[in-house]
Amino acid sequence: MLSFASDYEEGAHPAILNRLCDTNLEKSPGYGTDSYCSSAAEKIRAACGAPDAAIYFLGGGTQTNTIVLSAMLQPWQGICSASSGHINVHEAGSIEACGHKILALPSHMGKIHADELESMCGGLFGDENHDHMIMPGAVYISQPTECGTIYSLAELTEIKEVCEKYGLYLYADGARLAYALACPKNDVSLKDMARLCDAFYIGGTKCGALFGEAVVVPDPSLLPHFFTIIKQKGALFAKGRILGLQYDTLFTDDLYLHIGDPAIAAADKIRNALASKGYSFAFDSPTNQIFPILKNEKLEELADKVVLSYWEKYDDTHTVMRIATSWAVNDSDVNELIALF
Amino acid sequence: MLSFASDYEEGAHPAILNRLCDTNLEKSPGYGTDSYCSSAAEKIRAACGAPDAAIYFLGGGTQTNTIVLSAMLQPWQGICSASSGHINVHEAGSIEACGHKILALPSHMGKIHADELESMCGGLFGDENHDHMIMPGAVYISQPTECGTIYSLAELTEIKEVCEKYGLYLYADGARLAYALACPKNDVSLKDMARLCDAFYIGGTKCGALFGEAVVVPDPSLLPHFFTIIKQKGALFAKGRILGLQYDTLFTDDLYLHIGDPAIAAADKIRNALASKGYSFAFDSPTNQIFPILKNEKLEELADKVVLSYWEKYDDTHTVMRIATSWAVNDSDVNELIALF
Amino acid sequence: MLSFASDYEEGAHPAILNRLCDTNLEKSPGYGTDSYCSSAAEKIRAACGAPDAAIYFLGGGTQTNTIVLSAMLQPWQGICSASSGHINVHEAGSIEACGHKILALPSHMGKIHADELESMCGGLFGDENHDHMIMPGAVYISQPTECGTIYSLAELTEIKEVCEKYGLYLYADGARLAYALACPKNDVSLKDMARLCDAFYIGGTKCGALFGEAVVVPDPSLLPHFFTIIKQKGALFAKGRILGLQYDTLFTDDLYLHIGDPAIAAADKIRNALASKGYSFAFDSPTNQIFPILKNEKLEELADKVVLSYWEKYDDTHTVMRIATSWAVNDSDVNELIALF
Amino acid sequence: MLSFASDYEEGAHPAILNRLCDTNLEKSPGYGTDSYCSSAAEKIRAACGAPDAAIYFLGGGTQTNTIVLSAMLQPWQGICSASSGHINVHEAGSIEACGHKILALPSHMGKIHADELESMCGGLFGDENHDHMIMPGAVYISQPTECGTIYSLAELTEIKEVCEKYGLYLYADGARLAYALACPKNDVSLKDMARLCDAFYIGGTKCGALFGEAVVVPDPSLLPHFFTIIKQKGALFAKGRILGLQYDTLFTDDLYLHIGDPAIAAADKIRNALASKGYSFAFDSPTNQIFPILKNEKLEELADKVVLSYWEKYDDTHTVMRIATSWAVNDSDVNELIALF
Repeated sequence: MLSFASDYEEGAHPAILNRLCDTNLEKSPGYGTDSYCSSAAEKIRAACGAPDAAIYFLGGGTQTNTIVLSAMLQPWQGICSASSGHINVHEAGSIEACGHKILALPSHMGKIHADELESMCGGLFGDENHDHMIMPGAVYISQPTECGTIYSLAELTEIKEVCEKYGLYLYADGARLAYALACPKNDVSLKDMARLCDAFYIGGTKCGALFGEAVVVPDPSLLPHFFTIIKQKGALFAKGRILGLQYDTLFTDDLYLHIGDPAIAAADKIRNALASKGYSFAFDSPTNQIFPILKNEKLEELADKVVLSYWEKYDDTHTVMRIATSWAVNDSDVNELIALF
Repeated sequence: MLSFASDYEEGAHPAILNRLCDTNLEKSPGYGTDSYCSSAAEKIRAACGAPDAAIYFLGGGTQTNTIVLSAMLQPWQGICSASSGHINVHEAGSIEACGHKILALPSHMGKIHADELESMCGGLFGDENHDHMIMPGAVYISQPTECGTIYSLAELTEIKEVCEKYGLYLYADGARLAYALACPKNDVSLKDMARLCDAFYIGGTKCGALFGEAVVVPDPSLLPHFFTIIKQKGALFAKGRILGLQYDTLFTDDLYLHIGDPAIAAADKIRNALASKGYSFAFDSPTNQIFPILKNEKLEELADKVVLSYWEKYDDTHTVMRIATSWAVNDSDVNELIALF
Repeated sequence: MLSFASDYEEGAHPAILNRLCDTNLEKSPGYGTDSYCSSAAEKIRAACGAPDAAIYFLGGGTQTNTIVLSAMLQPWQGICSASSGHINVHEAGSIEACGHKILALPSHMGKIHADELESMCGGLFGDENHDHMIMPGAVYISQPTECGTIYSLAELTEIKEVCEKYGLYLYADGARLAYALACPKNDVSLKDMARLCDAFYIGGTKCGALFGEAVVVPDPSLLPHFFTIIKQKGALFAKGRILGLQYDTLFTDDLYLHIGDPAIAAADKIRNALASKGYSFAFDSPTNQIFPILKNEKLEELADKVVLSYWEKYDDTHTVMRIATSWAVNDSDVNELIALF
Repeated sequence: MLSFASDYEEGAHPAILNRLCDTNLEKSPGYGTDSYCSSAAEKIRAACGAPDAAIYFLGGGTQTNTIVLSAMLQPWQGICSASSGHINVHEAGSIEACGHKILALPSHMGKIHADELESMCGGLFGDENHDHMIMPGAVYISQPTECGTIYSLAELTEIKEVCEKYGLYLYADGARLAYALACPKNDVSLKDMARLCDAFYIGGTKCGALFGEAVVVPDPSLLPHFFTIIKQKGALFAKGRILGLQYDTLFTDDLYLHIGDPAIAAADKIRNALASKGYSFAFDSPTNQIFPILKNEKLEELADKVVLSYWEKYDDTHTVMRIATSWAVNDSDVNELIALF
């Protein structure tokens, strides 16, 4: 059946699979000490303009968020996040399971506003009883957000300024970063991310890899003994080369910068088609996720024709659904989908 | 350079790579709800004679040990393990990081003895102050052990009897289980494992998979809400199908039962050759790991010819090294290695 | 200087001190196994109409909340609480530090509403992705609340019904329970608490003891091995008798039921006096805490005459302050305070 | 019945109780901000020759060990301790519950040897795989030890030198410190403790206080935000003054330095009497704990005459028992005890 349920339904970019096959019986040392990992790290440093950055390859997004944030924070610190942030809703309490409170900010289509962050921090650090309370130690954002929206460079810079004022680290979840980088409306480059964030990750699982995420830490002294923490949290792959090889491929000839292009083109086509048919959207998202508001009867009609993702109830007669395109989207599926509306 | 450093130096069994390529652009639902995972689980249940078992696919050994053991235990419980157990030495304190004490037993070439387990449990449960102390809740063993030795069915049964006497779960780390199953001296089948253990895992990373481990829980009620715990610990793969497909392949036509055969044959050949040249061994290991005691001058001589793993200092003039063969070993490498001694 | 800053500014009820002196050189066994603890527990069971209840004596409120709630919950469970709940604001993230997410409900002058709890639970348990999310396992309330309000028996019963519907434990923080029990408007008895709550604590620190809180668990099977958990969390007193003796005194001749009487009488007098002078209050609290809204100039005027507690900013020209009376309040202080307004 | 079961069987030194009574209705601010706490801290700083030290008052020994050690250590660090160390045996896994592995060293009548510490550290830090392992971050000792023995200044200095070589903190558990300070064979002063240890605590519970322990941190920058951590762990007393007043009393006129004198005198008398009657001892302990090896028939004979503490089985016909004297011991009890042997 037709499916636009998510961007992690297919396998990997063919270039990755080909290279896995070509190098399969090579022997390489374990735990990320192989030449694929070092080559991939070098290419990522170059793409980020961050020559001193530490690069770590992990297995998935929740794992990455949990390990980086818990390593970044002290026991008396919490994390500011949009209430809709993935860590606050859909990661099974992983942050709290590591001992840290999430300090929820209003979500504006997935984004936080710098002035609300400023207001929260001013209130908390200024509270007479602040030493009986959890103080923010870091800010979590996602680029693009869970709602498909993107921070502009100006917005990101404003957030960074609040972080600097209060001594907070800025961490960005880039699970779908390729779809921001491929989006014409985006003005935040990898170099901007590396300049403004204390850590962020370049998503692989949803962006053409079999699996994997690459953490970029521009100033490696931020996360001392991070290798051991990765091991302790069960996130160190014995065959690290499998992750290294995938990222080395994704960062050869700027593949990662363009791997999202077909997804963005398809999403634009779908969005325009639905808009012209009179559908409205829950979020004004310019990336690979589209959130149409559908009548419940329409939902029932679609049920045996296409798989979409349930997002949330809109009102008693309408539902917000998610349509996601991926790097592997094909034109005939897109046309078939549009014809259903 | 020639390397016998470990059994995770190569990629995956070709049958796995071929199938990954063949199915690459198929779409499948996420988080292990796909048909590959369910097919693999069904085949594993059949191979284990455990029709009701829950099967979970995870990413690596430390992750698996940590998640299963921490889910298995209550806050007031610890884990009995050989002092040489992987969880006690080389997993960066992952068990303690989840809050549990490891109660170390003497290691007899990697194995624990049932009578010493009995004696520890009798002492602890019988102690007047036992409610000020950590009581054992589970026993950790590895099959084969870190020293390449294997438990006999009789030994495993004796350990199980002590577990039942004191209400302890028995958990087996099967990182290299294929190499026990392929070993002619082994008399413990997958069905025995499923009958005697409350949980164990069937190692993939070191046994022909790109990565991955399959947890078998014969009575699923032992680990309620385990899916959420996996997610919380960052171990849930969005593209679960990549793990499912690998295990479905490994359990088609008994591939897993025989994938270790070449490794065992090669190890026997190396062991015999070294023994006949007068070398002795630190452990009497019948599986794919060999632990020769080498003069330090010999080590220096080998240094630029072959990569082995350092195991431990034997005395001031000798060192124990580890030679590991894998499912992908080839004859010419074996001959080349033997010629170096 | 005059102070109404809190209800924990004085020492202990004289009957407690006298008895500590009288028994000082008696020898008794440690860790709560002494006769004072068992006598106190027996009296508390009788007062609560809970003949099978387990009674534990701990040192303070945050300690008690943290230990009981973390022992009550499974790793995949969180706690519903008013956003203003002490555990959510002023306990330094102690609940999250034990691994659990707090699921915040709107605070209605410190209280939660049963219908909003029902709505949160319905939404969470009904969510398609609920196994990627934290599910509620318990509900935290305080009686009286941090805002000095009290739950009526009808309100408590409604909350209990929602708890039963969704399989949640109900836990009540009784740091100031004596002030609810002494309040004429209160219709919830100790027996009601024991009937409706799965656990609650009878506050000592703020209610006449030197320090200490008594946990009541009507069905002790709820918290297995709780003694060891108390020890593990560093909350077991070697000289448990000091806690036992205090509670034995507080539950002799119904002392605890009436120890709050002077505080309530004083608070009523202050409240009435301020109201008649035209002051209004942030919360409609009938217990020993009063929350007048004061002009900032008034605050400055009071600054060198009486110590009150800052509660929160009301608007740019007004501040909410807290006046707290205690079991040890005296009439001349009350008159002096009233004269300042 | 006669009892020498422990040194925490009585209440508090009369001077403490008197002062509690005298000041009972004074009002003081909460959470350790009162004048008793600041006065006590000043006196302790003077007694320790540590003018910059931070002093924290906590409730009990396990609580103190757990909070200080977990605050001191990073996630990748463990704690070296004698295998017999209280944290390793009788604190219900509290250290592991905070995420840290205990690295056990041989116990020589409760003490560790500097050369064995050196050897462990050399091995661990020098291990090729040390980043897959837990590295020591601190050393735990007790003075006097659980076996009643004391470290000499020379021994302590040697241990400190190893700590400095490997960058480890040195922490001393002083639950019974008064009994070392009162012991004629002791040559380690409070000033030595403060000079050699990065943190230690001055025990109150077993040394004349109702309850309480005073942590001394000569360089306060070692434990940033420690106040909040104390709160988070549930160890902050609202009425901090009760702890402050006790320590202020104990450090007035050198009371603490001499409060153990009667216990030491009594223990010497008992030890000599038993030795002269032919009894031998499990440990050569010069402080307030005596560990005679008794025939099991003797045990039965004593059972209804005096309460001692079971220590451990010696052989099939003998048992090691503990006799403990306290600051409140009286001569007639001592004579009665001796007469029983």
